[in-house]
Amino acid sequence: MTSKTSKTKKSKYVYFFGSGKAEGSAKMKGLLGGKGANLAEMTNLDIPVPSGFTITTETCDLFYQSGKKWPAGLEEQIKDNMKKLEHSMGAGFGDRDNPLLVSVRSGAAVSMPGMMDTVLNLGLNSDVVQGLIIKTENDRFAWDAYRRFIQMFGNVVMNVKHEKFEHILEKKKEQCGYKLDVELTGNDLKEIVRQYKKVYQEETGEEFPSDPYEQLSKAINAVFSSWHNPRAIRYRQLNEIRGLLGTAVNVQAMVFGNMGDTSGTGVCFTRNPSTGENKFYGEFLVNAQGEDVVAGIRTPEPLSDMAKHWPVIYKELCAIRARLEKHYRDMQDIEFTIQEGKLFLLQTRNGKRTAHAAVRTAVEFVKEGVLTEKEAILRVDPKQLDQLLHPTFDPKAKRDFLVKGLPASPGAASGKVVFNADDAEAWTAKGEKVILVRIETSPEDIGGMDAAKGILTARGGMTSHAAVVARGMGKCCVAGAGDMKINYDAKEFRIGNRVIKEGEFISLDGTLGEVYAGKINTVEVQLSGDFGKLMKWADKFRKLKVRTNADTPKDSEVARNFGAEGIGLCRTEHMFFEGDRIIAVREMILAENKEGREKALQKLLPIQRADFEGIFKAMKGLPVTVRLLDPPLHEFLPHEDENQREMAEVLKVSPETVKQKVNSLHEFNPMLGHRGCRLAITYPEIYEMQVRAIVEAACNVKKQGIKVLPEIMIPLVGHKKEFDIIKEKVEKVIAQVFEEKKTKVDYMIGTMIEVPRAALTADRIAESAEFFSFGTNDLTQMALGFSRDDAGSFLGEYVAQGIYEKDPFQSLDQEGVGILVQLGVQKGRKVRPDLKIGICGEHGGDPESVEFCHHVGMNYVSCSPYRVPIARLAAAQAVIREKK
Amino acid sequence: MTSKTSKTKKSKYVYFFGSGKAEGSAKMKGLLGGKGANLAEMTNLDIPVPSGFTITTETCDLFYQSGKKWPAGLEEQIKDNMKKLEHSMGAGFGDRDNPLLVSVRSGAAVSMPGMMDTVLNLGLNSDVVQGLIIKTENDRFAWDAYRRFIQMFGNVVMNVKHEKFEHILEKKKEQCGYKLDVELTGNDLKEIVRQYKKVYQEETGEEFPSDPYEQLSKAINAVFSSWHNPRAIRYRQLNEIRGLLGTAVNVQAMVFGNMGDTSGTGVCFTRNPSTGENKFYGEFLVNAQGEDVVAGIRTPEPLSDMAKHWPVIYKELCAIRARLEKHYRDMQDIEFTIQEGKLFLLQTRNGKRTAHAAVRTAVEFVKEGVLTEKEAILRVDPKQLDQLLHPTFDPKAKRDFLVKGLPASPGAASGKVVFNADDAEAWTAKGEKVILVRIETSPEDIGGMDAAKGILTARGGMTSHAAVVARGMGKCCVAGAGDMKINYDAKEFRIGNRVIKEGEFISLDGTLGEVYAGKINTVEVQLSGDFGKLMKWADKFRKLKVRTNADTPKDSEVARNFGAEGIGLCRTEHMFFEGDRIIAVREMILAENKEGREKALQKLLPIQRADFEGIFKAMKGLPVTVRLLDPPLHEFLPHEDENQREMAEVLKVSPETVKQKVNSLHEFNPMLGHRGCRLAITYPEIYEMQVRAIVEAACNVKKQGIKVLPEIMIPLVGHKKEFDIIKEKVEKVIAQVFEEKKTKVDYMIGTMIEVPRAALTADRIAESAEFFSFGTNDLTQMALGFSRDDAGSFLGEYVAQGIYEKDPFQSLDQEGVGILVQLGVQKGRKVRPDLKIGICGEHGGDPESVEFCHHVGMNYVSCSPYRVPIARLAAAQAVIREKK
Repeated sequence: MTSKTSKTKKSKYVYFFGSGKAEGSAKMKGLLGGKGANLAEMTNLDIPVPSGFTITTETCDLFYQSGKKWPAGLEEQIKDNMKKLEHSMGAGFGDRDNPLLVSVRSGAAVSMPGMMDTVLNLGLNSDVVQGLIIKTENDRFAWDAYRRFIQMFGNVVMNVKHEKFEHILEKKKEQCGYKLDVELTGNDLKEIVRQYKKVYQEETGEEFPSDPYEQLSKAINAVFSSWHNPRAIRYRQLNEIRGLLGTAVNVQAMVFGNMGDTSGTGVCFTRNPSTGENKFYGEFLVNAQGEDVVAGIRTPEPLSDMAKHWPVIYKELCAIRARLEKHYRDMQDIEFTIQEGKLFLLQTRNGKRTAHAAVRTAVEFVKEGVLTEKEAILRVDPKQLDQLLHPTFDPKAKRDFLVKGLPASPGAASGKVVFNADDAEAWTAKGEKVILVRIETSPEDIGGMDAAKGILTARGGMTSHAAVVARGMGKCCVAGAGDMKINYDAKEFRIGNRVIKEGEFISLDGTLGEVYAGKINTVEVQLSGDFGKLMKWADKFRKLKVRTNADTPKDSEVARNFGAEGIGLCRTEHMFFEGDRIIAVREMILAENKEGREKALQKLLPIQRADFEGIFKAMKGLPVTVRLLDPPLHEFLPHEDENQREMAEVLKVSPETVKQKVNSLHEFNPMLGHRGCRLAITYPEIYEMQVRAIVEAACNVKKQGIKVLPEIMIPLVGHKKEFDIIKEKVEKVIAQVFEEKKTKVDYMIGTMIEVPRAALTADRIAESAEFFSFGTNDLTQMALGFSRDDAGSFLGEYVAQGIYEKDPFQSLDQEGVGILVQLGVQKGRKVRPDLKIGICGEHGGDPESVEFCHHVGMNYVSCSPYRVPIARLAAAQAVIREKK
Repeated sequence: MTSKTSKTKKSKYVYFFGSGKAEGSAKMKGLLGGKGANLAEMTNLDIPVPSGFTITTETCDLFYQSGKKWPAGLEEQIKDNMKKLEHSMGAGFGDRDNPLLVSVRSGAAVSMPGMMDTVLNLGLNSDVVQGLIIKTENDRFAWDAYRRFIQMFGNVVMNVKHEKFEHILEKKKEQCGYKLDVELTGNDLKEIVRQYKKVYQEETGEEFPSDPYEQLSKAINAVFSSWHNPRAIRYRQLNEIRGLLGTAVNVQAMVFGNMGDTSGTGVCFTRNPSTGENKFYGEFLVNAQGEDVVAGIRTPEPLSDMAKHWPVIYKELCAIRARLEKHYRDMQDIEFTIQEGKLFLLQTRNGKRTAHAAVRTAVEFVKEGVLTEKEAILRVDPKQLDQLLHPTFDPKAKRDFLVKGLPASPGAASGKVVFNADDAEAWTAKGEKVILVRIETSPEDIGGMDAAKGILTARGGMTSHAAVVARGMGKCCVAGAGDMKINYDAKEFRIGNRVIKEGEFISLDGTLGEVYAGKINTVEVQLSGDFGKLMKWADKFRKLKVRTNADTPKDSEVARNFGAEGIGLCRTEHMFFEGDRIIAVREMILAENKEGREKALQKLLPIQRADFEGIFKAMKGLPVTVRLLDPPLHEFLPHEDENQREMAEVLKVSPETVKQKVNSLHEFNPMLGHRGCRLAITYPEIYEMQVRAIVEAACNVKKQGIKVLPEIMIPLVGHKKEFDIIKEKVEKVIAQVFEEKKTKVDYMIGTMIEVPRAALTADRIAESAEFFSFGTNDLTQMALGFSRDDAGSFLGEYVAQGIYEKDPFQSLDQEGVGILVQLGVQKGRKVRPDLKIGICGEHGGDPESVEFCHHVGMNYVSCSPYRVPIARLAAAQAVIREKK
């Protein structure tokens, strides 16, 4: 990280910034740390920032090399720079009449929250504090500043525990009968300072230093030492930060907005962060400090009023606004302080904004010639688009927080609580809005999930049934809210002592994963022209195609409107549940032999064919990848006694027969059990029916003059021979249908790559398979050995302890699962260079994973309909970033 | 496969063998096929085999190239060779007075059961059959030969269905009131021949050919054509046989042992196949055909009597015996026929033998100077050693077959049926021998499993709990006998209509995986000096160390006696069940917080420490790899209401508390759930207690003057950071114990590689881990996506359809899982060249997998105690084969 320049000028330890000129610049992060480099950059832009100086990271290194001693010359350089600083600020360090106070902060090349905290107000002593009282005419402020300084210095520099100081403060308030800190008077605080100093001496064995330079050198040493404190070491380990020399130390003049009526403070955005409108936006307070704004003790005035109050300063601020936007080429979030008529910028950073504002500013920056289209594309966080595509709660509405879960499917919804799918359908039919609350959902609940406005579950992760289905429906879902105890019998759920009963209103924020009591108004989706423009630009640059995971004509339609270029995953099992078809499915499962199964499958054939006709028509010639039956058969059977009895009645068998079948199909680890193409190895007739339905539908739709492109996908393949055996049977059926229908359609036969063995032997499988679709949900489960339904009990801890940075079911584990994906792509293409490769796991809608898919050379990603725009944008960003 | 010689002599299509000289040899398998090359070899050895000739595989290729036509010159060469054959046999092809009959057989370079069957007795027609009657003075034999010829020719050459012929035979028997074929007279058979010919004409549209040369050319074409029949193509596909030209055709003279009192037939072994004794062994029959011996109609005489009956021929046979053993350098299994005083060898092959015989003959061949030690090592199939190490059933005892399961743990046992572990212990305490019959076993059953003589389960595969534990105990086990319906309430099990009740005797053959009704006497283990000698030789050559999987001092002792060089896997969870300790374990699980857990763990500490002391002492300084707790916590809780109530009583909590805990720990896929080191991430105190127990034990044992080498193994690691976090805690505990004990011991900290991600990122993990142990059971489960407990429902079909050649839980799937293992070894050693690597999955005792482990460069394999000798032998074979 060290630049060559710095190495040759070895004896320069300190870099000054102030009075419109800095010795450093934004490029010198390695030497000056991130904070130091940015302060230098702003200074060079002629932005008025409080002056200061930065002690380099190399100095920190030398400090350690020489056994925690300062290198020769450092002291001198610090003193020289302090002189410059006094000059620049027109005040003196330790000067009672015109005191200069400074802050001391750490700042490595990479932001490290694990390191030292800040020391403010350094330079105060019993002498200087008197000067400050006179100058500010505010003894309360001065003593409070001193008190704070002693506490920070004691804690940060000398490791005196916070409680030691807090205890004194609390006792004082108790004695005086105060409730709030602000009730303390100047005299109270003066007394507290006395007691603080006493504690300091008791704890450290030395007096609180009154010499400002002693204060400063101790603080600098503390910052250096913080580089090797256990928190910082641990942070670097976990985040794999290596090769840094140490931390820089930033010493910067303190400025105060509470020095009378020519002082003040404010926060502003260069554009409206909520709408993106190009209008200076913010608020300010006269004679106040930043804390006062935050504490909400006084109500700030809108920034526009500043033009009247301080016309000159306001003009200066407007000029800075323009300069900052031009320099950083982005909307800025600015903090400023006015000290006795002089404007100081304390911070500027890219402003946080809503999705609407992000899209609008990006598009308008292009119009203004500030950004290119490519740059504009990079400016919008794809994940933020969720906000645009789903309803949100009225931001002004009050939220009565109940419980937190996982943000399983974005959006916002309010409705009455119901506890089962049947009720959800019945209540909705009566015109009620409902939220379906379940411990977990299963495929039997599809109807109720569709009817409900939102879904809330107590169990399950980001790829649980509820989450996947809800995202597919574009419906808001909070999953795995483990603190919620559901009692189906009592029709209520509890969170701590609160009880919510059936029929009560709750509200879900699926974007945050939060649940609130009561009803909250929602703001509906409105897509702007800017959004369309940005998407068009994205389409121009991206190389990955974007498909959708859709199982119904309706979903297909939605996705096509969002720009989907085909279906990457059409799950056929959801089709098995609707209406009466589940009866035929169960008949098939109960059948004693192949003939019985075939008889039941015959009943399903016309229904499935009609399903596929609908989907093919909706997709108008775009490719449709149909996955043949995947889940284990027991998922289609009822597990509760009563439902088993009902099923037995319908199928005219004994309840024992049903129960026995359910028991015989029970598996210890269904995830690794008898499912996917394994069903086709043992019961080939199931896939034969499905293939017939697909191909008959394709021929029928073709006869109506609509193009069709079915891609038949065999799930859970692990071995080439397995694929070959099934492929042979599939081809036989296709040939038969072509002959019967006297027509042909183009088709492909390929496989999911979701079992690790398939990725490892992808070269073998590609000899037979015409396309691969990475099923990264299951691939992640098997490669990591994490059951997505069970990982909730430890995954939180794994992310908290930094083992996985993100939930690997949300964002592809590139370091691990990624190796399998890369191997699969490379091996597959080695054998079949034109192999079509995509991804259809949930990761297909995660921006970072989309970028990964682009890099490994996939042809497309497939995601749930509401994530299609996100994937389009992410795919474009991947291309643009790559070229940079 | 084609040799250069054959290519230059392109016009030679036919190779003769006979009269002590052959044009081919054993080296010409590519050109002559396996059978043809062997016939040539025997002829060259001057072994009297019936003469004949082989049409080359190249000819088959040419036949296809020219559109199923014979190449020019083939017909002539066949005729020439037939002349030679007639001369050699002293008979004429189609000669009524002295007929030569031939067999026609296919024979590719690789044995292919999917190809054409044999045609025997070719050359017969209505004329020749008369000559045969006169010659054999046996019209029944002659007509039966003719009948069989027509049927075989019709079926094999012309595709007439067997049923067409069988139907005629059955009708005839019915008409005559016969039950058996042998009751048919010569006249009956003559009539059948007439009808056969009629059917032949009806089905083929042509008359049955009477010209022997026409018969021959049709049969040759049929053999050629069989190369491309669907069965053969499928067989080659499944077995990945590629690059072969086609099949050879073998035409060989028929000889008959039923041509009067100077004729006969017999089967013999050059040594006793049961004991290995160097004594000519076999039986013969005068005036009989091979079939008669097989059919058991007449009782054959012992070979020794032949010396009296036919002294000259016997002497000749003895000379051949010596010559064959010398040539093939192995015990031979010989079939011979004597036709009118002339001895013909029909077949010689390496004789199948018992394990005892295999070991004895191998060692004696070395003594006799026939084999080197290395060759002798290769002569014993390591798998066969199971026979030596476990009791077997008296081979003469009758077996009343009940049901087949998986051969989960070898050996044989008889006992009374009990249905739960408690009964097994109680009955055994009363002096009964019992077989424990369960749907499946769980860790709670350990005590009963130990008490029982054998274990039988209805569910579970080769690596199910029952199988793994039984193998560890060296106890016979049949697992996954799915046809068995167990009714715990009625204390009985059913197989079809048979009911076996508690207390009835059954017998298990764990080597075959079969269950019999009643009691069968067993032959106990007796290890010979020859066995010890062979093992010593093996140890001299092998490079892999062989360790054992053992959890108790007793198992450790057994394994060390079998030659184990350390413990590769000491599972600590089994220790959690014994006696009262399960109470403390459950107390820990029920605890509300860390303090509660630590309190319960404190109770376990001294017990675990004592366990480890016992094991360390038993291993006397050999390395001991201890795996920290692996299974999910719910395995330690009772799942049945009654047991839950008992537990609640013992722990003084409400039964609801227990039930709730059980429910909250329930997992959908426990295999991929909260277990292994994941427990240590969430509850570090468990491993901390275990590590303390290990290290305290090591220090204590060291103080007694015994060397100790503990290797602490962290299971289920998938991510380096996961390992690092735990390692840090483990090292802290070790340092504490060293300080407390004022001593130190050598130790290592390593990990299992059993999650695919761990193998994929082994380079990262090896930065921290000092050793790897491949847990290929779990690695197979996750890489293939096969739950070993559930795969029973489809794995049989997978092996039957040839997708996997073997159960991948028995023999490592080298093509798939093997890639992960190789990656893991390579990546690990790249970072840490001296990384110690072993395997501790069940594959560590499978000879082929051991060979694989040798090839990838592991340091050791670890297997259950009774498999240690198998692994030692397999490891030596791997080295010897590699050098060859």
